[in-house]
Amino acid sequence: MEEIVLHAVQDIYPDDFAWCYGCGRLNEGGHHFRTGWQGEQTVTIYTPKEEHTAIPGFVYGGLIASLVDCHGTGSASLALHRKNGHEVGDGVEPPRFVTGSLKVDFLKPTPQGVPLKVVGTVTEIHPKKWRVDVEVLANDTPCARGEVIAVVMPSTFAKKE
Amino acid sequence: MEEIVLHAVQDIYPDDFAWCYGCGRLNEGGHHFRTGWQGEQTVTIYTPKEEHTAIPGFVYGGLIASLVDCHGTGSASLALHRKNGHEVGDGVEPPRFVTGSLKVDFLKPTPQGVPLKVVGTVTEIHPKKWRVDVEVLANDTPCARGEVIAVVMPSTFAKKE
Repeated sequence: MEEIVLHAVQDIYPDDFAWCYGCGRLNEGGHHFRTGWQGEQTVTIYTPKEEHTAIPGFVYGGLIASLVDCHGTGSASLALHRKNGHEVGDGVEPPRFVTGSLKVDFLKPTPQGVPLKVVGTVTEIHPKKWRVDVEVLANDTPCARGEVIAVVMPSTFAKKE
Repeated sequence: MEEIVLHAVQDIYPDDFAWCYGCGRLNEGGHHFRTGWQGEQTVTIYTPKEEHTAIPGFVYGGLIASLVDCHGTGSASLALHRKNGHEVGDGVEPPRFVTGSLKVDFLKPTPQGVPLKVVGTVTEIHPKKWRVDVEVLANDTPCARGEVIAVVMPSTFAKKE
């Protein structure tokens, strides 16, 4: 049985902020990561492409870091959106976050050819700063653990559109 | 004046381990990051592609994390190779490292359209475990700071070639 994310926050990012190489639906060359709720946790599911290799047979660490990154900002967006009384699909645009810091511990080689399930637990540190604890699983086995500090997008970004 | 890395460690990784999406010379779809010495520090120079966007005008954080990742393992490889009495170009294959952990602090939005210069300082923690402190600069301005713990490739990888 293949799991899919039905209601992803990236599906409803404002158009101007939907160009991210990792998760922007408008970036044709990008990965199109999609993040949604699963109970009280957040989930992203992605099967790395053949070229996303570290050593043949194993997934590239930079791709795993990218997954953790976009999963982190997406999860924070979902959480603040919910705190504001909204859910994906109710017609309201969610807040957009950027990454303040990113940490990944690689626990074991991540096998290629299977969907990776990225699970996040979101904690508010400050109204504009959220921590997302992340686990990356392949075949239900944790292969990497991450932490993202996500920050509500500052105006310095918006000016440059 | 454009800086380039002349003698990159990735140019001499053994063929079986030259498929990395970030820095493998044999991975046609990859980024082809290249890392060499600059005095006592290590340097990688890379100009992100147009699609490597976070928000239009700024570089995707996952690409910066990927740069830090491969720069870290490449720098550790250069350093252990030098410790073993070898330099890129002397005909001896260097040791190959994997990433144990990766941390990136994003200091400010990284502008697109300019070469990024990644500078590393390598410290031996253990004969098989090296720390690389990394700075990512755009137009000589630090935009991100990272730390990689790189570990000599364990045999679990080699078995799966």
